Amino acid sequence: MSDPIFQHQQLWQLAVDIFLKINCPKQDAELAADVLLNADLRGIDSHGLARLSGYVRLWEANRINTNPNVKIVHETPSTAVVDGDSGLGLVVAPKAMAIAIEKATKVGTGWVAVKNSNHFGIAGHHAMMALQHDMIGMSMTNASPLVAPTFSVERLLGTNPICVAIPAGEQPPFVADFATTTAANGKLEILQRKNQDAPEGWIQKKDGSISTNANELKDGGALLPLGGDREHGSHKGFCLGAWVDIFSAVLSGANYGPWVPPFVSFLAPPADPVGDGIGHFFGAMRVDAFRPVDDFKHHMDNWISRFRAAKTIAGQDHLIIPGDPERESEIERRKSGIPLNDKVFEDLQALSKKLGVAF
Amino acid sequence: MSDPIFQHQQLWQLAVDIFLKINCPKQDAELAADVLLNADLRGIDSHGLARLSGYVRLWEANRINTNPNVKIVHETPSTAVVDGDSGLGLVVAPKAMAIAIEKATKVGTGWVAVKNSNHFGIAGHHAMMALQHDMIGMSMTNASPLVAPTFSVERLLGTNPICVAIPAGEQPPFVADFATTTAANGKLEILQRKNQDAPEGWIQKKDGSISTNANELKDGGALLPLGGDREHGSHKGFCLGAWVDIFSAVLSGANYGPWVPPFVSFLAPPADPVGDGIGHFFGAMRVDAFRPVDDFKHHMDNWISRFRAAKTIAGQDHLIIPGDPERESEIERRKSGIPLNDKVFEDLQALSKKLGVAF
Repeated sequence: MSDPIFQHQQLWQLAVDIFLKINCPKQDAELAADVLLNADLRGIDSHGLARLSGYVRLWEANRINTNPNVKIVHETPSTAVVDGDSGLGLVVAPKAMAIAIEKATKVGTGWVAVKNSNHFGIAGHHAMMALQHDMIGMSMTNASPLVAPTFSVERLLGTNPICVAIPAGEQPPFVADFATTTAANGKLEILQRKNQDAPEGWIQKKDGSISTNANELKDGGALLPLGGDREHGSHKGFCLGAWVDIFSAVLSGANYGPWVPPFVSFLAPPADPVGDGIGHFFGAMRVDAFRPVDDFKHHMDNWISRFRAAKTIAGQDHLIIPGDPERESEIERRKSGIPLNDKVFEDLQALSKKLGVAF
Repeated sequence: MSDPIFQHQQLWQLAVDIFLKINCPKQDAELAADVLLNADLRGIDSHGLARLSGYVRLWEANRINTNPNVKIVHETPSTAVVDGDSGLGLVVAPKAMAIAIEKATKVGTGWVAVKNSNHFGIAGHHAMMALQHDMIGMSMTNASPLVAPTFSVERLLGTNPICVAIPAGEQPPFVADFATTTAANGKLEILQRKNQDAPEGWIQKKDGSISTNANELKDGGALLPLGGDREHGSHKGFCLGAWVDIFSAVLSGANYGPWVPPFVSFLAPPADPVGDGIGHFFGAMRVDAFRPVDDFKHHMDNWISRFRAAKTIAGQDHLIIPGDPERESEIERRKSGIPLNDKVFEDLQALSKKLGVAF
């Protein structure tokens, strides 16, 4: 790989400077940079700096308010609905998650649905905020429609990710962070850059027939729900994506299904919105609302150790516990730096030049 | 099909009579029969009367306490841990779900982890209890290890189902109830009876290689997580199954992973348990803890109508909304009766004869 490599701190500062240029308050600029860089550190390159110019274009199109009044519009002791005031999801999401954590501190659990937000970066960042409080964290979001449910030729759902983060003791935390499709859109983008085909079961053509063309979405095709086809359980992947959509948007009052506004600024939002912006859903559960923290962590350690040590198929050393690859990436990239592919590097050079930011 | 057909009421009475014979209190016998028959009505034949003799054998093996003291052992305003006292899961689960609903009534949401229980029938029954209260219901359970996580040749997880039940207005409720495997074990049993092969991606051989033999589990094989293999997202199916296992058992103090006791009485439970019995997890969220019920139902109706009317692939009339097939089955079977396959019919005849119950 000849991708240029940058230190985490340098890229973080670049992101902060750019968010400041689009009028984010300093605290919000730093928070948004934290979330973006967390994606790059954890190896989820599609959700890190690769998206920075996209956020700027949405701001240029007046679709992001960089000085939002993020506020609770309805609540009970264990729930809240938050209005993100068209803010950056990168800022709205951690603020909403903090509310979930505060409610959990008081009554055991907290559950926050968010409307009127935008793309929130990686789900993992927000759910993992719970870990330092000895809480289980959950986060989910809906997203621009790219996915055809089972039997549909229309794109009606986003890749609608879910993250569940669970603390352990000696072992690292269990962090499952995944799109509810067979493969995330970022995986397709990697294949597109390498001019490679996609496996069957990832995408379909615009008529719903099987495709292995990694560029199929540009020709009206769609991503497929986890499972791929009905015989392999795609109706379950559809259930998951629908669940995320309904919790994120029907509970909160955001747009859902095909009405979710696109991330890309060159596509206009639907003219007949059914709600406000995009939606998220967050949860925090205090471990000691169920059992003593030490007991729980002891058994989580035992769970993780037992699964990690399981007998494997030929050619594999050990099972991968959810969160392992991202944590290993973070350790490596904090030490050796973050590689940026050519396209992202050029994009950031152009962006910093345009906004008059050093890079 | 020449399967004998019975009226719902007749089979319900049979189940009540048999539960009474194994010393369930009348109320518990009726509750357990409700749950079992709900599976038969909804077309999930593997979880209905087909399992009745299995529960009886567990009782004969002293592994089920038919007069349990189901009680809360720890709680906060929004959470509880319930000890099922080795009771029938069919009885423990609805009692625990009722606690979740009660807590949601008070503080917006309720979350109940259960230990020391047994197989709870269909997840859908319990989650759907929330619907009549204008709440969203969730239920999940761990189960005997039959599933090999990605890269494992060992069976470490059960088929660990999740149900999410969401009320609507004019439309029927959204009810997603699914095993976190490519295919539920019941689907394999159907293939076994018909002497048919399974599709690739459902099961693996004992060395982890691909199998299409529907009887592979009898030779050390394993069911596969939703996704089938890593290329098709089986690590996400593993995340789901693990999530269910941890919420159901590590939060509650039940057995988890490979320590979950088997449903079949001829296999002894592990000699080194890590907890008590099997575990479940239930949730209830008041819709009006987020937004007015009428608004929510209006948008759920719109969500469901839009998805149901989507343009379909050739050969399909409409999309299937989660819950549609089970609801249609219930309407049909309440009217025309419930067919029992030969094996189940003979099993019930033998059981009723042994226990001296009319059938």
